Amino acid sequence: MGLWALRLEYDGGPFVGWQRQANGLSIQHVLEDAAARLNGGAPVASAVAGRTDAGVHAEAQVAQVELAPPMEPDKLRDALNFHLKPYPVAVLQAAAAPEGWHARFSAIGRCYRYRILNRAARPALSVGRVWHVRRALDAEAMHEAAQGLLGRHDFTSFRAAACQANSPLRTLDRLDVRRVDEIVEVVAEARSFLHHQVRNMVGTLKLVGDGRWRREDVAGALAACDRAAAGPTAPAAGLCLTGVVYGRDPFSPGPG
Amino acid sequence: MGLWALRLEYDGGPFVGWQRQANGLSIQHVLEDAAARLNGGAPVASAVAGRTDAGVHAEAQVAQVELAPPMEPDKLRDALNFHLKPYPVAVLQAAAAPEGWHARFSAIGRCYRYRILNRAARPALSVGRVWHVRRALDAEAMHEAAQGLLGRHDFTSFRAAACQANSPLRTLDRLDVRRVDEIVEVVAEARSFLHHQVRNMVGTLKLVGDGRWRREDVAGALAACDRAAAGPTAPAAGLCLTGVVYGRDPFSPGPG
Repeated sequence: MGLWALRLEYDGGPFVGWQRQANGLSIQHVLEDAAARLNGGAPVASAVAGRTDAGVHAEAQVAQVELAPPMEPDKLRDALNFHLKPYPVAVLQAAAAPEGWHARFSAIGRCYRYRILNRAARPALSVGRVWHVRRALDAEAMHEAAQGLLGRHDFTSFRAAACQANSPLRTLDRLDVRRVDEIVEVVAEARSFLHHQVRNMVGTLKLVGDGRWRREDVAGALAACDRAAAGPTAPAAGLCLTGVVYGRDPFSPGPG
Repeated sequence: MGLWALRLEYDGGPFVGWQRQANGLSIQHVLEDAAARLNGGAPVASAVAGRTDAGVHAEAQVAQVELAPPMEPDKLRDALNFHLKPYPVAVLQAAAAPEGWHARFSAIGRCYRYRILNRAARPALSVGRVWHVRRALDAEAMHEAAQGLLGRHDFTSFRAAACQANSPLRTLDRLDVRRVDEIVEVVAEARSFLHHQVRNMVGTLKLVGDGRWRREDVAGALAACDRAAAGPTAPAAGLCLTGVVYGRDPFSPGPG
């Protein structure tokens, strides 16, 4: 048996999310089905670094699958892409996993990007990839307010009710907001995030951007440790998992 | 009656192209239908700067429509977007057209961008927006060869058989090729282009990028004045109209 690390790109739009669910098609489902075809039909169990929600995209998700037949990494990538073909899911890279490596538990960093299309006209080319906000947003004020969330905190105010994490404590390493023409882009980095944490932070910062909240209101919402104290959850479509960090990166060649 | 200039964004994927056709839905069709609803139901005829083909996108197409009722520009934009809503077509801006202005005949420049996704894995997030080329392309060699097409030439070798232009003479002002990570991006600018000219140039430069042609072969293809001498037509999906230039730009405020 060989454990494989897979770097994945996907459009989360048509899926119920990463994780298998009874009510629809998941990315996990289509990936495990494709992998089973390369495993003599035997079922394949996968794990993943970031269990993205319905509608959330990935440019560089990292998953693992275990396969019995030996294979060349590039052949595995191409064969999986062949079987994934009806779906907007692509394996960008396959690599033999280092000894003891786990896609989820070995990850020491996750990076997400959230995009707000901030203009009067609704999106045509970026439908399903952005949150459309008509009212002009002050990205600088959002960035300033975001800095108050950095560091180690109890993020209960930004945590979904359904969150399964043992602790609401997380360390937020980066939360940058900048405007690029009509796009207000939020980049968030942490070792790990609570369920909906990025979308709840974005939904809160948007209140600062449109002038309804000040920086102190965001700090106050954090301190309240109460989900009702923070802003609404930003839509899934604007969110994309852009990277996963490992101590030993299975994808970069070098002394493993 | 008021003549309006409209700046449009659209995803060309679901359409037969800009122009009305018997065999399917066109962007012209859905725009004119939306405009007719604001014109008391009376039919509206439109004209456009670049008659894009099926599957070709636009970030900044410029169209004109004539409407009887007086209207505020932003209200017109919003009302058109409301009626266009089922389709991936959005009016970014509406402006009263200057005296004597015409969306097509007053245009003195068109800018197109072509994107090639150059990697082993097929696209997931950019499906329908790129040409996927697996073999590694030498973007620098493509750029060098492209420079041989600049200037005023008979572009018969890069002209579709169906092209309705009176003359095959065109002046190509810019044809830049550069790599941005996995994307090879071609930017083309001219007063006007022949039918399929950009896609035929890209299909030819791709032969240089993958090492099958040299710079001299592209120059030879141009000189041959024979469509069969140049490379194949690159797929529509990678092409996007990114801008139209006017002497008097209806969208920029100032002394008209």
